[in-house]
Amino acid sequence: MDIGEVNSLSCEEFVEIFGNVVEKCSLVAAAVWSRRPFNSVSDIEAAIADFIDSMPNSGKEGILRCHPDLAGRDLQRGTLTRESQAEQSQVGLTQLDPAEAAHINALNAQYKLRFGFPFVICARANDRPAILRQLSQRLGNQPARELPLAVEEVKKICHLRLQNLLCPVLPGPAQLGSTPPKL
Amino acid sequence: MDIGEVNSLSCEEFVEIFGNVVEKCSLVAAAVWSRRPFNSVSDIEAAIADFIDSMPNSGKEGILRCHPDLAGRDLQRGTLTRESQAEQSQVGLTQLDPAEAAHINALNAQYKLRFGFPFVICARANDRPAILRQLSQRLGNQPARELPLAVEEVKKICHLRLQNLLCPVLPGPAQLGSTPPKL
Repeated sequence: MDIGEVNSLSCEEFVEIFGNVVEKCSLVAAAVWSRRPFNSVSDIEAAIADFIDSMPNSGKEGILRCHPDLAGRDLQRGTLTRESQAEQSQVGLTQLDPAEAAHINALNAQYKLRFGFPFVICARANDRPAILRQLSQRLGNQPARELPLAVEEVKKICHLRLQNLLCPVLPGPAQLGSTPPKL
Repeated sequence: MDIGEVNSLSCEEFVEIFGNVVEKCSLVAAAVWSRRPFNSVSDIEAAIADFIDSMPNSGKEGILRCHPDLAGRDLQRGTLTRESQAEQSQVGLTQLDPAEAAHINALNAQYKLRFGFPFVICARANDRPAILRQLSQRLGNQPARELPLAVEEVKKICHLRLQNLLCPVLPGPAQLGSTPPKL
């Protein structure tokens, strides 16, 4: 699918394809449809970033709250979105031993208590030790510092999901195990 | 469920219960969780209205684009949300004859072409003739007039969905056929 085809999508088609580039926030894709025509994938990404940045802090927190816990309840229940399932499984979060799972769940709970939203990180840009290290480190941040950091992770996840949908290439380190493009 | 119980919900629980008071926009419920504690149902409703009003026009259009067509594809496919299914069925939109269905689909298509989002109306506050009349009338509006009108309908739908969740009463005209409260 090239950018001309993207620009010719109806709003329903656009939301169907791009509705989960920001996890469970199809409102975001639905909003940026207003910004067509796009010149490139980066242009869609910039429109999404602008829209997120235009939101009040409560809206940014809302976006974060639509994300699942890493190695959490949705993973156990099999109710992760297709994209999250692929991302968490790629970094081995689906294969934690009970002690590791208990450790990450305890840190996630502390994080949510402190900030009021779940810990969000672009799993595919990290390995498992790096994710655990950042979870511990970011727990020590002040809320005013942590919110923009977490929002940047949402944008990184969005970048890779858009790449997967619009720039399918042969599997390399950044693509291995990722969701195949829909079209 | 009283307001004290609502205020004690975790963000996941809150989004699970209130995530569809604005159709397919769980981000909205997730955002207003930041506004706890609430004093009343009206207070939740006001927080949601404030959040919607704080969005740029593209965000308001995005909310509208998350709504299904009345008597449209999702109804045919059985993929409406539980709430929309109940609302559309209550006003008889699930029982249109082929000529009526073709008429409403043609008007919906014109409306979307003109405004870039589907026609949204609080079905439970209208009967079938009134819905069709308003669809025809609103097609003639200027876009700058139509957007705020459509957003007001989103708020009316949200009001009734919140009432259903938090103020269950014996069935009366406004409740007949509506979704039973989850809790």
